[in-house]
Amino acid sequence: MLPKNRLFTPGPTPLLPAAQNAMAAFTAHHRTADFKALFSRVITDLRDFIGTSNDVLVIASSGTGVMEGAVSNLTSPGDPVLVLTAGKFGERWRDLARAFGCRVEVVDKPYGDTFSVEEVAAKLTRDTRVVYLQATESSTGTRHDLKGIAELVRRRADDALLVVDAITGLGTTELDVDGWGIDVIIGGSQKALMIPPGLAYCALSERAWKRMVTATNPRYYFDFRKERKAAAKGETAYTPATSLVAALGAALDFIRQLGNGDLAAGRKLLVDNAELAAEMTRAGVGALGLELFSVSPAAALTAVTSPAGVDSGKIVKEFRDRFSAVVSNGQGEMKGKLFRIAHIGYYDYLDTIGILGALEHVLAAVSNRPVEYGCALRAAQQVFQRSRTRELAEIAGAKN
Amino acid sequence: MLPKNRLFTPGPTPLLPAAQNAMAAFTAHHRTADFKALFSRVITDLRDFIGTSNDVLVIASSGTGVMEGAVSNLTSPGDPVLVLTAGKFGERWRDLARAFGCRVEVVDKPYGDTFSVEEVAAKLTRDTRVVYLQATESSTGTRHDLKGIAELVRRRADDALLVVDAITGLGTTELDVDGWGIDVIIGGSQKALMIPPGLAYCALSERAWKRMVTATNPRYYFDFRKERKAAAKGETAYTPATSLVAALGAALDFIRQLGNGDLAAGRKLLVDNAELAAEMTRAGVGALGLELFSVSPAAALTAVTSPAGVDSGKIVKEFRDRFSAVVSNGQGEMKGKLFRIAHIGYYDYLDTIGILGALEHVLAAVSNRPVEYGCALRAAQQVFQRSRTRELAEIAGAKN
Repeated sequence: MLPKNRLFTPGPTPLLPAAQNAMAAFTAHHRTADFKALFSRVITDLRDFIGTSNDVLVIASSGTGVMEGAVSNLTSPGDPVLVLTAGKFGERWRDLARAFGCRVEVVDKPYGDTFSVEEVAAKLTRDTRVVYLQATESSTGTRHDLKGIAELVRRRADDALLVVDAITGLGTTELDVDGWGIDVIIGGSQKALMIPPGLAYCALSERAWKRMVTATNPRYYFDFRKERKAAAKGETAYTPATSLVAALGAALDFIRQLGNGDLAAGRKLLVDNAELAAEMTRAGVGALGLELFSVSPAAALTAVTSPAGVDSGKIVKEFRDRFSAVVSNGQGEMKGKLFRIAHIGYYDYLDTIGILGALEHVLAAVSNRPVEYGCALRAAQQVFQRSRTRELAEIAGAKN
Repeated sequence: MLPKNRLFTPGPTPLLPAAQNAMAAFTAHHRTADFKALFSRVITDLRDFIGTSNDVLVIASSGTGVMEGAVSNLTSPGDPVLVLTAGKFGERWRDLARAFGCRVEVVDKPYGDTFSVEEVAAKLTRDTRVVYLQATESSTGTRHDLKGIAELVRRRADDALLVVDAITGLGTTELDVDGWGIDVIIGGSQKALMIPPGLAYCALSERAWKRMVTATNPRYYFDFRKERKAAAKGETAYTPATSLVAALGAALDFIRQLGNGDLAAGRKLLVDNAELAAEMTRAGVGALGLELFSVSPAAALTAVTSPAGVDSGKIVKEFRDRFSAVVSNGQGEMKGKLFRIAHIGYYDYLDTIGILGALEHVLAAVSNRPVEYGCALRAAQQVFQRSRTRELAEIAGAKN
């Protein structure tokens, strides 16, 4: 059928039309009152979106840039830090911390796995200066027990900063940033915010700002204190990606509208949306006899283990060639072993049912076992219907 | 889930992103060499899209405007004309012909029905000056036997012009305009061309141009001869809808790309796409025990009879409220009795499976009978899979 480019990747995600329009139309120069007003509003809105009272920065870079900043601004060479890793993005924390000369202790779990609070406790010491982890590990579709780990860190290591890469976590899983004591939380534009790649953002606690005074690692472009000073005036230290900031403004407006004028309520709906799409997808995948790759599946994406004897690259290719749908292969050592369908951001019922329908044809084409057409769809529909029934019951309950 | 505005109406139809971009970016004035070059190219391309060697006009109006032109330019008061009607758009021909003082003979069939060649033959006389009909009747989702009727008109009434409203027919059903001797064929922008409403186009035979010399009905804005003269210079008689012409250029480029550089091949793929989406939809609707409204279903759209006791307005509302999907109610006297799902233009597998999935939930909500989830989807998937198997067999056949 006709080619419609359809992203089901854990970033970039499908674009919000209102954000595309804002981006296409934007022409203001960045050192003007107009841009400053927009940028100040975006920063305030992002704070509500993240759900924090901490100061927020928006920087022209990919998420990895701000991850680097969360190492270079918060550590000095030789600092003992603890990295929790169970996938490619956990490894990125490890590599960044090593690149900046930290003494890196690692809780290293296999891909698809997660870490228990006890495992983290065993490696956390009084000396640990920073704990680095993901909220959700995008390479394996895993949700970590961030709340439990945060509790542990706050209880056991008063001086340790807790730094969370929530690039695929923000807007797909509920986080209480200030309540749990997360010192740095990092997001990216091309995820739940439904705009293209090019912006990263973060919120930093007072503990984190204080650490920067003594941290000696070199930083320049990602110097957070310089950005904080600029942001207070509605500016950025270096040239901002203006059209993306305009897109971000429109996306935050959309999320606020979703929440009937309340950004936090809008974020909650966005999270619920991802949770429902993920639950539908897991039900569909299960009905087809496929296995989830993760022991603790995230709502951000579903990683599915490729059927025995089938290279997942063939599945990815078949989705692309026959349905113009882009799903992700495994990364690194997981390449060929799994494929990933994302639920981050701008997806609806039709997208979710559509991609599961396509999966049935793809599976019939790449594996030689018969596929019972409609079985994944029915399972997903039943999940959707149950969620609707619950919703109606809640509405009825609220009225009584 | 998140609201994504999804049109499944028989016009406007989903927009082609490349056309949206072209439209948003276009700024040229219409009396410039740039615009003239674009407009000339669009007219040439439209000729290939329609599949005719006749002169083509593009006018800033809805399709009805050019329908009016096909009455005012081709008739004089008192002219005997024959209108074939089995729905709201057939009635529009009747009303237009009456408004311009023609003596109107009508083949009048009930909504959902079509006319046999014999029924037309019985009303066609030596005096008939024009025969007006639809290729596909959008109000009922009916495909008329245009080929058979054209053959009859050409054989029996040498002097009668054959005028076809193919506004939803072009790009959803194969037509041999010149081979069948169609004198006037009319299209609109917001249909298979995948751009917004605002442009209508037509192709006119030499017989039709000749008739205009003697036709005395008044016309000014829709004076086709004036437009033909302007078009020969890459212009329009009055201010053209420039951004829509830019969008049309991009849409025709897309259709040419579909056909590997051949616009006619691209149109054929567009028609095949609508045919497949319609076949999938009919299979799904049938599996749910619903009835098609038309005795001769078109590929442009599927009109479904509302289940006994259910006002189709409830179905339309449920689609909109729960899935942000816009399907059409019946029109005029058919309001409340049927709903219509379109397949015109830019739809793919995911759209088609998605809307059928939604239909199952909608049906469960509005009627009190149980719905077997997935049954419409499975039926549609089987149609899709068979079509794929045929396609592969053809490729294999071509190679041997």
